[in-house]
Amino acid sequence: MDGGNSAAEESASQVEEEVGRVVEEARQLQESAASHIARSFSEEQSLRQRANSIDSSVRRCRSLLHSCLSRRLIDAKLEDELQRAKCVVSDGDAAAFLPNKSQGGFLRMFLGPINVRASRKDVQLKVKEEYNSYRDRTALLFLFFPSALLILRSWLWNGCLPAFPVQLYQAWLLFLYTGLALRENILRVNGSDIRRWWIYHHYCAMLMALVSLTWEIKGQPNCAAKQRGVQLFLQWAMMQGVAMLLQNRYQRQRLYTRIALGKAKRMDVVWGETAGVDGQLWLLCPILFILQGFEAYVGLQLLMTAFVRVVTEWQVIFCGFLLVLMAVGNFFNTVQTLLTKSRFKAKMKRVKSKPELD
Amino acid sequence: MDGGNSAAEESASQVEEEVGRVVEEARQLQESAASHIARSFSEEQSLRQRANSIDSSVRRCRSLLHSCLSRRLIDAKLEDELQRAKCVVSDGDAAAFLPNKSQGGFLRMFLGPINVRASRKDVQLKVKEEYNSYRDRTALLFLFFPSALLILRSWLWNGCLPAFPVQLYQAWLLFLYTGLALRENILRVNGSDIRRWWIYHHYCAMLMALVSLTWEIKGQPNCAAKQRGVQLFLQWAMMQGVAMLLQNRYQRQRLYTRIALGKAKRMDVVWGETAGVDGQLWLLCPILFILQGFEAYVGLQLLMTAFVRVVTEWQVIFCGFLLVLMAVGNFFNTVQTLLTKSRFKAKMKRVKSKPELD
Repeated sequence: MDGGNSAAEESASQVEEEVGRVVEEARQLQESAASHIARSFSEEQSLRQRANSIDSSVRRCRSLLHSCLSRRLIDAKLEDELQRAKCVVSDGDAAAFLPNKSQGGFLRMFLGPINVRASRKDVQLKVKEEYNSYRDRTALLFLFFPSALLILRSWLWNGCLPAFPVQLYQAWLLFLYTGLALRENILRVNGSDIRRWWIYHHYCAMLMALVSLTWEIKGQPNCAAKQRGVQLFLQWAMMQGVAMLLQNRYQRQRLYTRIALGKAKRMDVVWGETAGVDGQLWLLCPILFILQGFEAYVGLQLLMTAFVRVVTEWQVIFCGFLLVLMAVGNFFNTVQTLLTKSRFKAKMKRVKSKPELD
Repeated sequence: MDGGNSAAEESASQVEEEVGRVVEEARQLQESAASHIARSFSEEQSLRQRANSIDSSVRRCRSLLHSCLSRRLIDAKLEDELQRAKCVVSDGDAAAFLPNKSQGGFLRMFLGPINVRASRKDVQLKVKEEYNSYRDRTALLFLFFPSALLILRSWLWNGCLPAFPVQLYQAWLLFLYTGLALRENILRVNGSDIRRWWIYHHYCAMLMALVSLTWEIKGQPNCAAKQRGVQLFLQWAMMQGVAMLLQNRYQRQRLYTRIALGKAKRMDVVWGETAGVDGQLWLLCPILFILQGFEAYVGLQLLMTAFVRVVTEWQVIFCGFLLVLMAVGNFFNTVQTLLTKSRFKAKMKRVKSKPELD
């Protein structure tokens, strides 16, 4: 009994010692964590200052160079060097310390003031990669959902869509476009060059999905006439799915080519943009323009039903208007991208041929 | 002419020098940025390991202590010390290096794999503060929207709500609940102790807002009977607004009190939870229970309309069911919180009175 007690007391003192050790370790950990955070914060501050000042120096040098170059006083290869320095600052490890692109109202509205910028390059690339594979999965569903609805319509539902599956599809669209808009805003903050229009385009699509949810799907009698708008929309969505699959393949190849050539920042995302791998462009461009034409056609059809056949629902007019707006915006942005691309090409040719001329 | 030329050449050589300097600075910046990122990454890794090992040591010590304490071999103040060490690790600067709480499917679904955890404590607190003020603004709108609809209904619309304003309100609800669910998930990742149920509750509310958008608002004839569900829902929403305002005031006071007492992590968020400032609890608790009762009543009324008056819309049944589910869940979680609170109080009393007994 005595022996047992003393053994228990001994183990108790061991526990006491252990607790003391752990408490001390915790105190030390707190100290090193605090000093690490403070030190790395001040280091980041100084890197931020340096990155900023070099960024503005590069810009100043650029305008100086341009005036010298126009008077042919300076070697053109100096411009290349400066360009490379610019890339190092804006796309290298230092890029994390350049002032944040503003996160924009959309992210702040949904997420509050949390920072979504990754400082490490590999994390940024992971985000980009995940976005690409998300788009792939999405494109498949984009093809599958409307085709399933259209097939079931003629096989099972005798040419008249029931409301519930269509509304489920519209809710999915709303969720999808919200997710895409959030992700693209996040990519922008992380340094992607995505054109603003493609994000606005997704805001419009979100709005349309929301409005179409409140739009009553009418059935019998004369179902075919009443559901003409829905049917056109589903057909357009199917084509959209095919175009998305092609685009994704094209974008990825283009991205990898450009990364290999060292031309591009790896955060470039271009949904519907068309600069790059020429071989596939002859396939992609016509499809994009046909899609945009069909989008405008569906929109005009909706407006027609509203004005000619005297449908009083505001949703029809609103969706028609949005579709036309999106088609026009898409068209102009695609054309602008193609123009930029051809201008870039012409410049590259000039640069290449110049030394021979000299 | 000659003098002008040589001056131009001189300035050209100056530009050349300047470009060379900038290029060199950019190279150096890239180097220091890369080394800073690598160094701080490896430091963080080692802090992570230490935090992890201390965290598990604390847990081991705790179970050892408990067995010793039950045999009264060890001073109770050792437990306090260990508790303090635990707080230092899990709530101090080292907390940023403990393994991430999983971000959860909801955030991944909308945002992809981006990290939303802030490592600096002051940023985390800013996020929390912003969430609180967002809730305040929200509560005011929550009170304003349904009251405006109900007042306009009797003054302007002759007792019959038009569809559009109601749908606008429902769309706002959907947006609001999505934002709240995203923000609360972000707070959780940042170390808040918010109860899981309040997040699930917002998922349910999102679903309900979505479903109610597809639910056709019927008008004449016999508008009062057809819109009974909507009207009940709006009345409940008004009460909800009042309760939210009270809760927000209460939560903030409680948070500040607890921060002052050093008891709580500052990331605690408790929407509908009720531990804390006793003075206001006698006001808040009855209101919460009445609200939950009314929520269940509205849900049952909707189910009744569906089953007794043979309304065939699935939306009515679904919303009724969701409301009852949410009411029951809210009730149990509020009760559980109250129980935890009273148990905690009893324990505190015991701890305080013990030394006198000894």
